[in-house]
Amino acid sequence: MKISDRIEETLLKVLRRAKLDPAPPKLAAALNYSVFPGGARVRPQLALSVSIACGDDNPKLSNASAIAIELIHCASLIHDDLPCFDDASIRRGKPSLHKAFNEPIAVLAGDALIMMAFEILGISSDITPERLPTLIGILGRSGGMPFGICSGQGWESEPEINLSAYHQLKTGSLFVAATQMGAISAGEDPEPWEELGARIGEAFQVADDVRDALETSHQIGKPTGQDLAKNRPNAVNELGVAGAIEKLQDILSGAISSIPSCPGEADLCEIVRKQAALLTPINYKNHNI
Amino acid sequence: MKISDRIEETLLKVLRRAKLDPAPPKLAAALNYSVFPGGARVRPQLALSVSIACGDDNPKLSNASAIAIELIHCASLIHDDLPCFDDASIRRGKPSLHKAFNEPIAVLAGDALIMMAFEILGISSDITPERLPTLIGILGRSGGMPFGICSGQGWESEPEINLSAYHQLKTGSLFVAATQMGAISAGEDPEPWEELGARIGEAFQVADDVRDALETSHQIGKPTGQDLAKNRPNAVNELGVAGAIEKLQDILSGAISSIPSCPGEADLCEIVRKQAALLTPINYKNHNI
Repeated sequence: MKISDRIEETLLKVLRRAKLDPAPPKLAAALNYSVFPGGARVRPQLALSVSIACGDDNPKLSNASAIAIELIHCASLIHDDLPCFDDASIRRGKPSLHKAFNEPIAVLAGDALIMMAFEILGISSDITPERLPTLIGILGRSGGMPFGICSGQGWESEPEINLSAYHQLKTGSLFVAATQMGAISAGEDPEPWEELGARIGEAFQVADDVRDALETSHQIGKPTGQDLAKNRPNAVNELGVAGAIEKLQDILSGAISSIPSCPGEADLCEIVRKQAALLTPINYKNHNI
Repeated sequence: MKISDRIEETLLKVLRRAKLDPAPPKLAAALNYSVFPGGARVRPQLALSVSIACGDDNPKLSNASAIAIELIHCASLIHDDLPCFDDASIRRGKPSLHKAFNEPIAVLAGDALIMMAFEILGISSDITPERLPTLIGILGRSGGMPFGICSGQGWESEPEINLSAYHQLKTGSLFVAATQMGAISAGEDPEPWEELGARIGEAFQVADDVRDALETSHQIGKPTGQDLAKNRPNAVNELGVAGAIEKLQDILSGAISSIPSCPGEADLCEIVRKQAALLTPINYKNHNI
């Protein structure tokens, strides 16, 4: 089965379970709305690609790890869009969750997706329970405090901020979780996979900053120019568009050469190369800068 | 070591870890503010009492399970207090988290505590990983959708509501998690422990309704009369004060007689009896009703 089909099918399964009696219908609908249709599903694709490269001996657990990461990502988007943070009206080309439903439902949907991410890992660990402690530890670390998304987002409430620490926490941590959890799910040591996740995460953030600077809100399906408007750290503000694109290409070359030796190494290099091409589309390269 | 000391010491340890570099200082302080000083710590006390009654062969895991439950409880209080839900100004006798800090910090603190609850279970499962899948499954179930706290809270956004389902989800589910996770942490089957958790949870909700009806906001450290004001389901509104107290006493007798046979059965009965006495103080019994 294709990687993308495995991801969508596993997401559908957990979202169907969340609708069972006695689920309140609005919250159940909101969970569905926030997860489908997805964005590029970059993080779960990366996790599952690493699992496959490592032999994928427990596909149920690999699928669970991949979607656990996506659910944490979706939860962070919902809460980031709330009026007290970005107050974003659109997300993935449609009204943000609190606009489509309401604010209480958006807070609860984020909470429920976080719980669901961990729960699916527990439910999927019957055959290989010895892999679960590290999976849970890494997911919690990458989402929470002091090393994860919450920590990064929390820096926005501080008077001074360190650009690279901020990006590493808010974006990088979940990419590191993706490669490491992909490896653990297939019974491999996570440590050699940290660098690949860190580099792709960094590339992704820089690409997002470039897109934020160059495209319109309509093109990317969410508000643009938010970082500049709110004086938030951003690679384009720091290096200019040309500098940011150069940095992006350096990071992606480093990512590919960091891939550890494994049965599916060649295929994984190809997948990362394709992701890299998606992150640096031709219109950025030719942009008048 | 006393049960309460084990709980406070384990909470202190995870909260100290959450402050490590690169934690943003305000969010780190907010986590501390929301967890200390605690309320009665009823749920972790119950979990740890059950672990002890079952032999407590892995105290590190029993402590982790107890505080995981407390962290989910604290997270739910923070999010419940937000302006879009109860808009509560006081909690545990001091300003609610979003009043003491701000709304973004309160959203993030709740998210971080949820992640931390799962993470501590993962970190504490090195010796007995085979117990972790069920622990994670139960904690996720009791906090999330469709069987947990989020589901219960989500029913407040629906036009019609079933009183007993609502209470079971919003309050009962975490008490069931407490007894079951206490048992699993000590290597016991969780199933026979469900009834004790369910009954104590039900009793606790009814006692809360009675307190809400009889005491002042100053006495209990949070706003009173909220249920009546918002037309939310409440045992006193349904049965009157006398009827609610009678129901409470019936439930607690049932709780004690449901305790499964185990090495520490007698001590656990005594602990539940004491909890029961705390839930039905003399001024309720003599109240002019």
